Amino acid sequence: MKHFTKKQINEMDKIYRLNLINSCTGYKSSNLIATVSDKGVNNIAIFSSITHLGSDPAMLGFILRPKTVPRDTYVNIKYKKKFSVNHIHYSQIKDAHHTSAKYASEISEFEKTELMEEYKHGKALPFVKNAPVQIECKYLNEYEIKENGTLLIVASVENIFVNKNMLLEDGMIQLDKGGVTAINGLDCYTLPKKLERFPYARPKK
Amino acid sequence: MKHFTKKQINEMDKIYRLNLINSCTGYKSSNLIATVSDKGVNNIAIFSSITHLGSDPAMLGFILRPKTVPRDTYVNIKYKKKFSVNHIHYSQIKDAHHTSAKYASEISEFEKTELMEEYKHGKALPFVKNAPVQIECKYLNEYEIKENGTLLIVASVENIFVNKNMLLEDGMIQLDKGGVTAINGLDCYTLPKKLERFPYARPKK
Repeated sequence: MKHFTKKQINEMDKIYRLNLINSCTGYKSSNLIATVSDKGVNNIAIFSSITHLGSDPAMLGFILRPKTVPRDTYVNIKYKKKFSVNHIHYSQIKDAHHTSAKYASEISEFEKTELMEEYKHGKALPFVKNAPVQIECKYLNEYEIKENGTLLIVASVENIFVNKNMLLEDGMIQLDKGGVTAINGLDCYTLPKKLERFPYARPKK
Repeated sequence: MKHFTKKQINEMDKIYRLNLINSCTGYKSSNLIATVSDKGVNNIAIFSSITHLGSDPAMLGFILRPKTVPRDTYVNIKYKKKFSVNHIHYSQIKDAHHTSAKYASEISEFEKTELMEEYKHGKALPFVKNAPVQIECKYLNEYEIKENGTLLIVASVENIFVNKNMLLEDGMIQLDKGGVTAINGLDCYTLPKKLERFPYARPKK
């Protein structure tokens, strides 16, 4: 096996380190966070850090660097207290990746990609049309991770929309039935396939 | 699409909600965290919340419920300040899932599964042998998420061991070359395949 020490990691080329450290934790969720600004401009940005925080109450979180891109997402969430999380279908990966380009705040990524807006029940919050799973979230809190200045955004799950063919009898959303992607590292999009489900694990005698 | 409101989520059957909310955020990393207790007993537990926190310095985090399983992981990390993160190969999923069974602290999951210990450079910290990627981590801090009492554990990346055939020239670890799995929901193991990598995104004119 190839071994990287902490010293080597600290001293390596920046791009090499970005690729290595972003890929070393395993597969990541691929989601588009959609928001709207105080001026009514919609924003979409790709995130790979959305994490389950708890089921009861239903909560999720994600990591954000407030001083770098995607800053619009943070400003909009703080203004509106609402955002949508949209899974990325394999046909959407090129456009999804393009949302990481640094556009000015007055430009909507919906105009610069083939991704289309969708609204639910007449509310102003945008969702990504044809996303296999869409979640409306409410901002609850943020925690600054002092060790590197990032923020953990904590949100509640308010509404879930899911393609019916992905929903199993026991409530599980089988993601591969909807063509949902996962991210490897910074820029590699992957398509997972189900291997096996296992029952609740009990100790062996 | 099937629509679940917050009220429906709050009132649904507990198992249905666990499956729905655990699968609604997308694919999750599949990792075994290995630790050692103050009595020298090795512990392995499966986690699906390990998240990239930053590259410089290299940091990762994960979510833990201190009052429920896997409590041993938390106690051991607080004692030793070190733990290892081990990716799960598709041949290891059955045993990896079994580590979620509630064994007494004096029983090592290495004894109850076919998973084997590996030590690096004579140190007492266990790794999982044949894991495609192994990371030695140092505990840095923890943040209590007040909204539901979970903890975000923050750690630094101290050493990385990676199968040479997974490591690309630019530092990216191509996870599908090592047979690394991803988790869907609570108990469904999946195998991703690479679709495409994209260059750094720049605004369109």
